[in-house]
Amino acid sequence: MSKEFNKHPHRRFNILTGEWILVSPHRTKRPWQGRLEKVAGEERPSYDVDCFLCPGNKRASGDTNPDYEEPYTFKNDFSALLPEGPAEEVQEGLFRASSETGICRVVCFSPDHSLTLPVMEVGDIVKVIRKWKEEYADLGSRENINHVMIFENKGDMMGCSNPHPHGQIWSQLSVPVEVQKKTRHQKEHWDQHKRSLLGDYLKQELDKKERIVLENEHFVTLVPYWAIWPYETMILPRRHMQHIGQLSGREEIAYADILKLLTIKYDNLFQTSFPYSSGIHQQPTTGEDHPEWHFHMSFYPPLLRSKTVKKFMVGYELFAGPQRDITAEEAAATLRELPVVHYSKI
Amino acid sequence: MSKEFNKHPHRRFNILTGEWILVSPHRTKRPWQGRLEKVAGEERPSYDVDCFLCPGNKRASGDTNPDYEEPYTFKNDFSALLPEGPAEEVQEGLFRASSETGICRVVCFSPDHSLTLPVMEVGDIVKVIRKWKEEYADLGSRENINHVMIFENKGDMMGCSNPHPHGQIWSQLSVPVEVQKKTRHQKEHWDQHKRSLLGDYLKQELDKKERIVLENEHFVTLVPYWAIWPYETMILPRRHMQHIGQLSGREEIAYADILKLLTIKYDNLFQTSFPYSSGIHQQPTTGEDHPEWHFHMSFYPPLLRSKTVKKFMVGYELFAGPQRDITAEEAAATLRELPVVHYSKI
Ligand SMILES: O=P(O)(O)O[C@H]1O[C@H](CO)[C@@H](O)[C@H](O)[C@H]1O
Ligand SMILES: O=P(O)(O)O[C@H]1O[C@H](CO)[C@@H](O)[C@H](O)[C@H]1O
Repeated sequence: MSKEFNKHPHRRFNILTGEWILVSPHRTKRPWQGRLEKVAGEERPSYDVDCFLCPGNKRASGDTNPDYEEPYTFKNDFSALLPEGPAEEVQEGLFRASSETGICRVVCFSPDHSLTLPVMEVGDIVKVIRKWKEEYADLGSRENINHVMIFENKGDMMGCSNPHPHGQIWSQLSVPVEVQKKTRHQKEHWDQHKRSLLGDYLKQELDKKERIVLENEHFVTLVPYWAIWPYETMILPRRHMQHIGQLSGREEIAYADILKLLTIKYDNLFQTSFPYSSGIHQQPTTGEDHPEWHFHMSFYPPLLRSKTVKKFMVGYELFAGPQRDITAEEAAATLRELPVVHYSKI
Repeated sequence: MSKEFNKHPHRRFNILTGEWILVSPHRTKRPWQGRLEKVAGEERPSYDVDCFLCPGNKRASGDTNPDYEEPYTFKNDFSALLPEGPAEEVQEGLFRASSETGICRVVCFSPDHSLTLPVMEVGDIVKVIRKWKEEYADLGSRENINHVMIFENKGDMMGCSNPHPHGQIWSQLSVPVEVQKKTRHQKEHWDQHKRSLLGDYLKQELDKKERIVLENEHFVTLVPYWAIWPYETMILPRRHMQHIGQLSGREEIAYADILKLLTIKYDNLFQTSFPYSSGIHQQPTTGEDHPEWHFHMSFYPPLLRSKTVKKFMVGYELFAGPQRDITAEEAAATLRELPVVHYSKI
């Protein structure tokens, strides 16, 4: 790609979804007179008597949390999916619907209310990863669960209603649309080359070194070529594996380590507890073999210019397609140069 | 559909995009301890000396607005798309990109800084519609413009950086991904039945009357069966037409009228100047015939429970697929019952 090209509006192709995104590199010069986000207070106690997720506290459902000391999982008190329900298919002309069942859980990362991933110990993040593995195996092995979505909404800007460090799991009967897209495109590549699409992609990225943010023995963090969110990143295992259940002990540590360093860089970017949604993409649990699937984790952070100015995915983005201002290469360079020591500790 | 079915989690199919959405009707009981949005001050003067869009004022670019009295259009000073640029295609292994050109414009709806669509006169909204027609014809007729996206981001919650009543137009060389989906699904139906997909859909909706919000001689407003946003609506012309250029004089008035009444209902819902993104979906301007296209307008408002609590499209929604809490039928019933006189005038 010519250096020139990269400075002008262009479109990039997302090999995982088969969709294009619009990049407008010149547009960062725009002054911002719009909305400034409020920043939630960042100092929190280790225990909050009013928190639904702290050990020993009563939840909204009336249940009481145990005095947990390790990552702790429970059924979401306001699950979007329920295990039981009438099984029905609707096909009335152009009205099409079908019942859906599933299980939603909450994963508390730590008993300590004040923590977040970047300030947790690597060893404690390993425990979170093991909990995710356990849940993926437990839920995924059930006959009525064909997909397990593990994710974290961090920060009230991302709709998170409780600052206690936690993530969610929504597991369900059907395979959601975004996962279907990723399956289709990985499968096309696999069928043609008998190689992982993301494995081949990773090779190209490691060769170019333009979008790499972090590397260790087992994992790479990069800004995808087709990133949508300003500082979007992807964590990719070097080894082609379908799901986190396949992580070895050493890989768990490497994963925890890169998770910590990436989230430290994020916090350092605008010296704030950085909001994002992160999600673990892995093979559907339909019972079929999915050799094409290459597990990866995405981070979609909303902030664009500072801790109070975010990127709005609104009119054009909703009706036409995704659009971004800074290029993936600029974002990667910025993230790469940030220190790996948390700003609060300097 | 059984009444029972509708109270349990289910999925619905979007006939325009071919994608499913998850509905969790039981979930509205969830208490909200999360982020409360700030509400921008709603009283505004008719003229603001610091506004880039008011008549006679200097814009960010240094240009001066004329003393306009009717809807006024100008080139966006921070256009995401530019008319010129190096034409290049990139295909380097799995990296795929291509240059993109286009024209971005701003449409001021009125010289009066204090207005919004619901408080404008129908006759003045007709002038906005005529301006949209003019722009669609002018931009769409150009050889390098194959799609014209007309939209409005209203409210700072929707990334709008200036409260002066205005919308935008992003027109470009390639047909964006969401438009391609809608073309594909409308075309399939057209090829099979030689009838408009949305025409057939509208018949079913008028028959059911469960999701209708407003009707007049030429237009219907409804909550689509597959709506994603809590109070999402669609304005549909009864007559099958491909684009707004085909609106007759009487249809322009009916369109203006239903636009005013819908936005009044929206403002009345939470007694606030209701934020939304709206977009006009019409046939691409590739020069080819698109008999399958049925022009329609979408409103995507973010608010869920009150003027300060919005629906967050985050973790699950971004990584798996869209999810909503209240059903389309409940939303339609709520909107239907709201008065058509603006709350500020009662
Ligand atoms: O051009 P504006 O109004 O400054 O910008 C707004 O609308 C654009 C088009 O939907 C978005 O790309 C921006 O994120 C949003 O803030
Ligand atoms: O379950 P929570 O954390 O209350 O809710 C949050 O995450 C969910 C899953 O992404 C979203 O549907 C909600 O809009 C968001 O507020």
